[in-house]
Amino acid sequence: MRDDAGRQRVIIEGVEPEIDCGRFPIKRVVGERVVVEADAFTDGHDAITARLLWRPESAAQWSETAMEALPNDRWRAAFVVTGEGRWLYTVSAWVDRFKTWRRDLKKRIEAGQDVPVDLLVGAGLIREASARADAGGRKADGRVLAGLAGDLERGKDAAARLSLALDDELAGLMDRHVGRAAASVYGRELGVVVDRERARFSSWYEMFPRSTGVDGRHGTFKDCEARLPYVAGMGFDVLYLPPIHPIGDTFRKGKNNAVAAEPGDVGSPWAIGSEAGGHKSIHPELGTPEDFRRLVAKARGLGIEIALDLAYQCSPDHPYVEEHPEWFRSRPDGTIQYAENPPKKYQDIYPFDFETEEWRALWEELKSVIDHWVGEGVRIFRVDNPHTKPFPFWEWAIAEVKREHPDVLFLAEAFTRPKIMYRLAKLGFTQSYNYFPWRNHRRELIEYFTELTRTPVHEFFRPNLWPNTPDILTEPLQVGGRPAFVQRLMLAATLGASYGIYGPAFELMEHEPREPGSEEYLHSEKYQLREWDLERPDSLRELIAHVNRIRRENPALQSDGSLRFHAADNEQILVYSKAAGDEVILVAVNLDPHQTQSSWVDLDLDELGLPRGEPFQVHDLLTGARYAWHGSRNFVQLDPHQVPAHIFRVRRRRPESDDPI
Amino acid sequence: MRDDAGRQRVIIEGVEPEIDCGRFPIKRVVGERVVVEADAFTDGHDAITARLLWRPESAAQWSETAMEALPNDRWRAAFVVTGEGRWLYTVSAWVDRFKTWRRDLKKRIEAGQDVPVDLLVGAGLIREASARADAGGRKADGRVLAGLAGDLERGKDAAARLSLALDDELAGLMDRHVGRAAASVYGRELGVVVDRERARFSSWYEMFPRSTGVDGRHGTFKDCEARLPYVAGMGFDVLYLPPIHPIGDTFRKGKNNAVAAEPGDVGSPWAIGSEAGGHKSIHPELGTPEDFRRLVAKARGLGIEIALDLAYQCSPDHPYVEEHPEWFRSRPDGTIQYAENPPKKYQDIYPFDFETEEWRALWEELKSVIDHWVGEGVRIFRVDNPHTKPFPFWEWAIAEVKREHPDVLFLAEAFTRPKIMYRLAKLGFTQSYNYFPWRNHRRELIEYFTELTRTPVHEFFRPNLWPNTPDILTEPLQVGGRPAFVQRLMLAATLGASYGIYGPAFELMEHEPREPGSEEYLHSEKYQLREWDLERPDSLRELIAHVNRIRRENPALQSDGSLRFHAADNEQILVYSKAAGDEVILVAVNLDPHQTQSSWVDLDLDELGLPRGEPFQVHDLLTGARYAWHGSRNFVQLDPHQVPAHIFRVRRRRPESDDPI
Repeated sequence: MRDDAGRQRVIIEGVEPEIDCGRFPIKRVVGERVVVEADAFTDGHDAITARLLWRPESAAQWSETAMEALPNDRWRAAFVVTGEGRWLYTVSAWVDRFKTWRRDLKKRIEAGQDVPVDLLVGAGLIREASARADAGGRKADGRVLAGLAGDLERGKDAAARLSLALDDELAGLMDRHVGRAAASVYGRELGVVVDRERARFSSWYEMFPRSTGVDGRHGTFKDCEARLPYVAGMGFDVLYLPPIHPIGDTFRKGKNNAVAAEPGDVGSPWAIGSEAGGHKSIHPELGTPEDFRRLVAKARGLGIEIALDLAYQCSPDHPYVEEHPEWFRSRPDGTIQYAENPPKKYQDIYPFDFETEEWRALWEELKSVIDHWVGEGVRIFRVDNPHTKPFPFWEWAIAEVKREHPDVLFLAEAFTRPKIMYRLAKLGFTQSYNYFPWRNHRRELIEYFTELTRTPVHEFFRPNLWPNTPDILTEPLQVGGRPAFVQRLMLAATLGASYGIYGPAFELMEHEPREPGSEEYLHSEKYQLREWDLERPDSLRELIAHVNRIRRENPALQSDGSLRFHAADNEQILVYSKAAGDEVILVAVNLDPHQTQSSWVDLDLDELGLPRGEPFQVHDLLTGARYAWHGSRNFVQLDPHQVPAHIFRVRRRRPESDDPI
Repeated sequence: MRDDAGRQRVIIEGVEPEIDCGRFPIKRVVGERVVVEADAFTDGHDAITARLLWRPESAAQWSETAMEALPNDRWRAAFVVTGEGRWLYTVSAWVDRFKTWRRDLKKRIEAGQDVPVDLLVGAGLIREASARADAGGRKADGRVLAGLAGDLERGKDAAARLSLALDDELAGLMDRHVGRAAASVYGRELGVVVDRERARFSSWYEMFPRSTGVDGRHGTFKDCEARLPYVAGMGFDVLYLPPIHPIGDTFRKGKNNAVAAEPGDVGSPWAIGSEAGGHKSIHPELGTPEDFRRLVAKARGLGIEIALDLAYQCSPDHPYVEEHPEWFRSRPDGTIQYAENPPKKYQDIYPFDFETEEWRALWEELKSVIDHWVGEGVRIFRVDNPHTKPFPFWEWAIAEVKREHPDVLFLAEAFTRPKIMYRLAKLGFTQSYNYFPWRNHRRELIEYFTELTRTPVHEFFRPNLWPNTPDILTEPLQVGGRPAFVQRLMLAATLGASYGIYGPAFELMEHEPREPGSEEYLHSEKYQLREWDLERPDSLRELIAHVNRIRRENPALQSDGSLRFHAADNEQILVYSKAAGDEVILVAVNLDPHQTQSSWVDLDLDELGLPRGEPFQVHDLLTGARYAWHGSRNFVQLDPHQVPAHIFRVRRRRPESDDPI
């Protein structure tokens, strides 16, 4: 028997949120609330008190918040995470003898029973609290309590004694000095990783720096600087660059992934490493470290953060190959094992052998790559194929980096099996790529985003929605024309508080696949320079700018937890809402890129905070149009060749309002 | 970094069954299977192997079973618990280099690639396994493997080398000597409490021994002996006796719970303790310890186990009150705190003060009560109000008793809040009272029994269904006449693998409440002797005997996990099935005690293992009638004044069958 275990009578279980038995932290950003619920109960009829305990991991002492009793032995309280880093929370609860006594005394009095002995019992409890107050250095409280105990024992006036017994101030004092010797504490301290706000709300733009040159010239960081106003003008706040490191020559791929490069072919930026250096170096044609630092600074001045690509793999020319052969797997013929997915061979890439005896040194070196770029001012990393490196490595590396730099964010590029993607998110990735590119039909979208936002997944997995990437040109974009691009933009930017596009391919609606059935781009920038006509009149840049402005101005679009879907008669019309405080945004998207679609929609008025059967106004932030709606059932019609979506701000009609309707 | 943590690349999570993060064991009986599933996956494309590890807690070594890969990174295997006591299981998995190599080699060969280097890689893997075999003392295997490695490296015939590489016997040898240095093991060892079969399948009869006398005489254990053939004749296998201990005089309750007893009133058996002794003593009017032992033995001879009541509370006359005043709470006026539920007072009962400083001694003494009766041959205890004693006490006491006597079973009498009832089951109670008495409508029954049998609750909570108890005469039994009793009997005996009745009140359809709106019996045996006319012609004893015979003869009715409900058009008709192996029992109950009800029923043929659109036979085990049914939709009609239920054995019609249809 554990010491005093027998007197810890309160059971605490079913604590939420809790990920995998407390193995992983939940995620929040600074200023958010953590609402915690737990089951707590004891044997018999005694009253209990439950408190939520919480603190930054670095704080020595718990802060406490009283939990509110809900039905069915459930308790709830909340705390606000006010700073970045790791926080902890747990629950404590105990049999509260004074609360029990007070509750029972009321019942006895109501039943007309004489209570002289009960008053003496209460006085005894108060004396015990007085002694605890004294012992805890709260002598003043101790004196007050001792006095009250005496009054309760010896008071002449019966009514006054009863009144004193049930006095709220006494109850407050007793609560402050409650006896917690036999308190139960939940067996686990649960973690919260608290990030800065961009972890939750971010608008990404991916761009190949080498394609920013003009007249066929290889782009440089200076060219990128010149491109920044264009990116900022569209309202993006993260500019993600594919790998900027030296590119290998050996087995270099040619245009359109040709097995052999032609002279002058620039190769894939993901074939990292040459005699010019490796993961901490810069491709000479892009510029110098100084150029890079200036780009980072210029971008910051425009409200844009530079995000780098973390691709842990090597070209055969990477300095690691000579310096650390022990980090690669040797074949019996003396060659180094290249990447494979049999029968496919990727001879331009050497994967690290994470099963090497020297894994500790390898881990340290890989982490030092992050440290290097953090030192250069980078705070966001998009991680290439994290699911092909061991999970324990990521958990260690991310935690180590964030311990010193809690503002560093990691986006997992893992389009793989669901459990693997979730595991990566649990073990530390801030944001995650996800199946959004392949969710096109209404039922698919509702199912997937319900899973992402209405289940415990929401506590650890922050989706970042990409309609396209250099690897993914989906079939609807190939065939759906401008309407498809606009639809996917609207969905990404309003279903997801974080989203991104790969441009200028996206805003210029690049849609030719390398071959039929492929999701690869023809003339992909992965293997060649491209020059883009940014001023093309059909560019989506203005619309993108408009949508990003709506996102910035409407907090409802800056988080995902409030996402709710609403019914619509027409399968081609997807309707959903998000809310922040009193603000409600309601979105309707026509999923058909070809035809105008109309539908009656059935709004869940409770979710929208709207009264039943009353009129309200919806204000389309895309077109400026305002509509007078009424009750739950309303009509929408959307032409994909005009604007295939409404982004409504919902306004409750108040009698005193002077809004035009 | 933990030592070698970096090379444990396989993640194991989502293990099922697992109760509260492994805090509590699941329950099984001897001979049952434990089917275990887990998510297991690794980074990259390597193949993994997963094994289920299991052992009796007392065994030093794990046994292992290969897990089968299901879709979505799920794995499954099962083991059989072959003996009583505690068992453990967990999961281990590892990257399997040979399995990966073999899979990839096949793909390379199919793609027509040359594989000389790959064969050398394979030979290297085989040499490593050979070394492991040698190191593990399996020199013969080691030699075979070394030879095969040599053949693979140096074989002249290319086709023979490929054939050897993919040879199944080689794969089996490699599996036997697989390298597990970097194996992951699930972080928790999960428990199974394995009981004897009666834990799962039992038929209880509750009876007051003192009411077995004749001509107004106080019944004795000898009278109980004479009653045993009656109980056995009805087919019960557990005879549960309310407390058999000396009864207190002080504040003794009179007939119908009168506050003051009249001279000659026998008092409540739950007011335990007098100068004649306490919880280890026998009420003198019932007989001697020798009489009790003979009753136990006689019962055993008839296939009946005697279950005793464990009611941890004292009358004011209990010897503990004098001997251990520290186990009770004193009031400021020097009296001992009696039981209360303010404003109600129960002055004939002193509860133990489990918050006493002397709780260890109290716990030991209370456990010694169990030990005492175990010593007298008792192996089943019905525990009175366990929810008014601390949870840690029960967890300790039950574990301690079962450690020495794994055949001891505990039934929790806790009609309280759901989470408390479930907690008691989790921490060790073998069977549990439940809300069955108050689930009468079809929807209520379906919802509740779905929760009990189709959710993780089923892993730890074994319901024991009581249509009545000395404390519970439900309203339907008060007003529904014989049909209500028969309906509730049918439901209890077929929904529950374990059920019980309080008799002879049940079979004689005793139905008068003490007052309108009360669930207490008028002239309750809790406070007075009763004489019952067991030979009354309207007694249900023959029907009960018939139902218990059906239960014994049909394994489908001896467990709860296979319970499935089927649709019926009429709300008054409840249809459900249970299966065991090929045997299927299908039950239809008319829930209306007044009117004949008929309904089309929609059978889930897949659940019943029946082919679609084909005829089959249902054989009513209650009436002997046989019906030819066809497909999913069939008709039933049930007259509550005849037999308000069908208990069908379902027979698939086979061409070679000579069953009459």
